[in-house]
Amino acid sequence: MKIAILGGTGSIGEGLALRWSKKHEVVVCSRDEEKALKAAEEYSGKLSDKGMVCCGITGCSNENGIRDASVVVISVPYDGVVQLLKGLKPFLKDQIVISLVVPMKKNKLFEYTPPKQGSAALEIRDILPKSVKVVSAYHNVPARKLCNLDDPLDYSVVICGDDDDAKKTVKELTRDIGNLSPLEGGTLASSYMIESLTPFLINLAILNKLSDLGVKFV
Amino acid sequence: MKIAILGGTGSIGEGLALRWSKKHEVVVCSRDEEKALKAAEEYSGKLSDKGMVCCGITGCSNENGIRDASVVVISVPYDGVVQLLKGLKPFLKDQIVISLVVPMKKNKLFEYTPPKQGSAALEIRDILPKSVKVVSAYHNVPARKLCNLDDPLDYSVVICGDDDDAKKTVKELTRDIGNLSPLEGGTLASSYMIESLTPFLINLAILNKLSDLGVKFV
Repeated sequence: MKIAILGGTGSIGEGLALRWSKKHEVVVCSRDEEKALKAAEEYSGKLSDKGMVCCGITGCSNENGIRDASVVVISVPYDGVVQLLKGLKPFLKDQIVISLVVPMKKNKLFEYTPPKQGSAALEIRDILPKSVKVVSAYHNVPARKLCNLDDPLDYSVVICGDDDDAKKTVKELTRDIGNLSPLEGGTLASSYMIESLTPFLINLAILNKLSDLGVKFV
Repeated sequence: MKIAILGGTGSIGEGLALRWSKKHEVVVCSRDEEKALKAAEEYSGKLSDKGMVCCGITGCSNENGIRDASVVVISVPYDGVVQLLKGLKPFLKDQIVISLVVPMKKNKLFEYTPPKQGSAALEIRDILPKSVKVVSAYHNVPARKLCNLDDPLDYSVVICGDDDDAKKTVKELTRDIGNLSPLEGGTLASSYMIESLTPFLINLAILNKLSDLGVKFV
């Protein structure tokens, strides 16, 4: 499967690229193609250093990266995502789009600040063509552990979306990453619940002097 | 420590009574004193059957139970809690009050329906005398596992409140129950986050055909 990662040069993007490239073709996307190429080369180097065979990590501009991907991951900050996706709309037809986007702001602690649609995932769905299948997942996997290929990643991943086949694909992709365990989270209307867990986890980490906090539903 | 449990005849109340009675004096409270006495006797019997020594579980009316307790646990459904506490206000002076209350309603799935104050804990704080220290905790510990004394209860308990000493006491009480691990959750204003996890966990259980789901932040 060809997976394009918007925000692929960020730490979550890196982790997903490293983990998925064992079984999938990964395209690291960035507004700045040079940066994407450099990141892809660096990730491939990390895998070689560990003696791991991969299906290929390449770097690309956003437009060219998402054009013929089956899955497009949106791993960018909330601010600017609307503008970014409006620009990329002509290149999105029937892909599965996985949103990791969390609208939040920092006061003393972090606070979830959803748009009027109720969640970032719903706002993203409204922007993109109806034929694109938006799925919400991976907001709460700690980035540093995702990048550390020796970490077992024993966490739950709640998956929300309106298209059952798309969710099925994302569940399979989730099982391809460490011990991540996919959980059905209902329709995209429930995405606010997993999005709002992100500032909550960050706050718990700050308040308890912990780091890289994830969540397990058991 | 003397702990009074409002709603002590319910399943969460039973679990807390069974678990705490190893180290604390527990008072099972109910509007119906007969029912409270019967439950207390039943719980004591369960502990004897397992050969466990306990510090005493007694049954009492709500008013008499909470009067001289150090800690009062509110483990009753949201509907009616305001009326209940308005009636009990004369008996609450400077106790620590632990709210497990979750305002929610069921449509197809469960939905968190906080009052205008933002959470049940904040609403409860507004009703009670200022000298009472309200702490929010234990919403997400699965009742059946809490009642099963052989279950290790390997879960996180996020604790919110405005009084640091009261939170410290509740953290100690949390460590007295199985492997429950207390986490600082900030002020009572953050309680909505742990309250809203309850319907989310119930929904996850329904959608994934699981039962007795709890949460671990790791």
